Amino acid sequence: MLKNIMIAALVATGSLFVVVTGQPALAEGKVHYLAIHVDDNDKAKMNIALNNAANVTEYYESKGETVKIEIVAYGPGLHMLREDTSPVKSRIAAMSLQHENLSFAACGNTLNGMAKKEGKAPKLVSEATVVTSGVVRLMELQEEGWAYVRP
Amino acid sequence: MLKNIMIAALVATGSLFVVVTGQPALAEGKVHYLAIHVDDNDKAKMNIALNNAANVTEYYESKGETVKIEIVAYGPGLHMLREDTSPVKSRIAAMSLQHENLSFAACGNTLNGMAKKEGKAPKLVSEATVVTSGVVRLMELQEEGWAYVRP
Amino acid sequence: MLKNIMIAALVATGSLFVVVTGQPALAEGKVHYLAIHVDDNDKAKMNIALNNAANVTEYYESKGETVKIEIVAYGPGLHMLREDTSPVKSRIAAMSLQHENLSFAACGNTLNGMAKKEGKAPKLVSEATVVTSGVVRLMELQEEGWAYVRP
Repeated sequence: MLKNIMIAALVATGSLFVVVTGQPALAEGKVHYLAIHVDDNDKAKMNIALNNAANVTEYYESKGETVKIEIVAYGPGLHMLREDTSPVKSRIAAMSLQHENLSFAACGNTLNGMAKKEGKAPKLVSEATVVTSGVVRLMELQEEGWAYVRP
Repeated sequence: MLKNIMIAALVATGSLFVVVTGQPALAEGKVHYLAIHVDDNDKAKMNIALNNAANVTEYYESKGETVKIEIVAYGPGLHMLREDTSPVKSRIAAMSLQHENLSFAACGNTLNGMAKKEGKAPKLVSEATVVTSGVVRLMELQEEGWAYVRP
Repeated sequence: MLKNIMIAALVATGSLFVVVTGQPALAEGKVHYLAIHVDDNDKAKMNIALNNAANVTEYYESKGETVKIEIVAYGPGLHMLREDTSPVKSRIAAMSLQHENLSFAACGNTLNGMAKKEGKAPKLVSEATVVTSGVVRLMELQEEGWAYVRP
């Protein structure tokens, strides 16, 4: 998002007139970005995270804007994305089918820890993508200008 | 600080005319912005959020600087702003009188859900302002450069 | 990423001499910044915060990059940094020795409150640095471009 401003600035610096807006998302085709952090093994929290994703999607769709949402699960929150233990598995499946803008990142560090403790790697729901580290993922997304909420 | 870099970049580019809009914090320098996220129905958490608001206000006032603070409540945290159930109602009233820089946003999505479940919309404390979606509000504030804490 | 863009911007603008101050991340590009917020008096949460710090450090070290991490403790979370009550005292000592990039900030406001209640100021672990206000510290770090997570 900041990148876009800079690119705009770059393009514009060839000229004599530069306008920099503080909200590039709006300047640029209305794309918004949200990282949602889940690290509790708590069905209610997982459902709030999913409610948040649904509300945000609906809000921006109704405005004709776009939003990308990534739910990042780690620590005890990784259960959200485990095939065998997720209490919100069917809702994740339904929401993934309905919303292309929604993705799920599972922390590889947590997964390795669980595999070691349980003797084999737990299977994840098909919607999940494994990232090296959930907390690093949350950092990277924020470095790229994503908003962050931790329900 | 991004401001400084942007200004440095723009000055360095030799642009003859520059307009920077949309992010007062960056343009003015002595204004700070904080969004506080409340989504637990937990009196202790609500009081920590209010303590945070008081401490931040006092700190910047003592430095002769300005800070705007918005407490955004949604999900079970919306009880913080309900006339009938808020355990911190009188403290909100007192702090609002004392601190003009402090505002309270109530999530419209949560409110609609509660209205549906309870048969009528719960009344909110007079200090609350209803926003369409609490999580969207937290995104918007971050997009505008506000800091975020979730006590 | 911002670094690359900034450098691209500066190179592209043909500036002969540019000084950018205030955010080493932008100037150097391979430095990352993470603030971790601890405000629960909960050993499991404190350990997740420490796990996060260890995983993030290991990740960036393996990439040949640098990361600075500050764990900011306030409210009930201040117990993490109290000499007499911290349940993770020895782990903090060990990690501090091992990781120069890791620091611990203790909220002065919370400390004053505890001192008043207990009749004397609690002693902190030697790794902790007292800041005026934990929440202000989290704001300042975000204003300087640090990512934020609240485990």
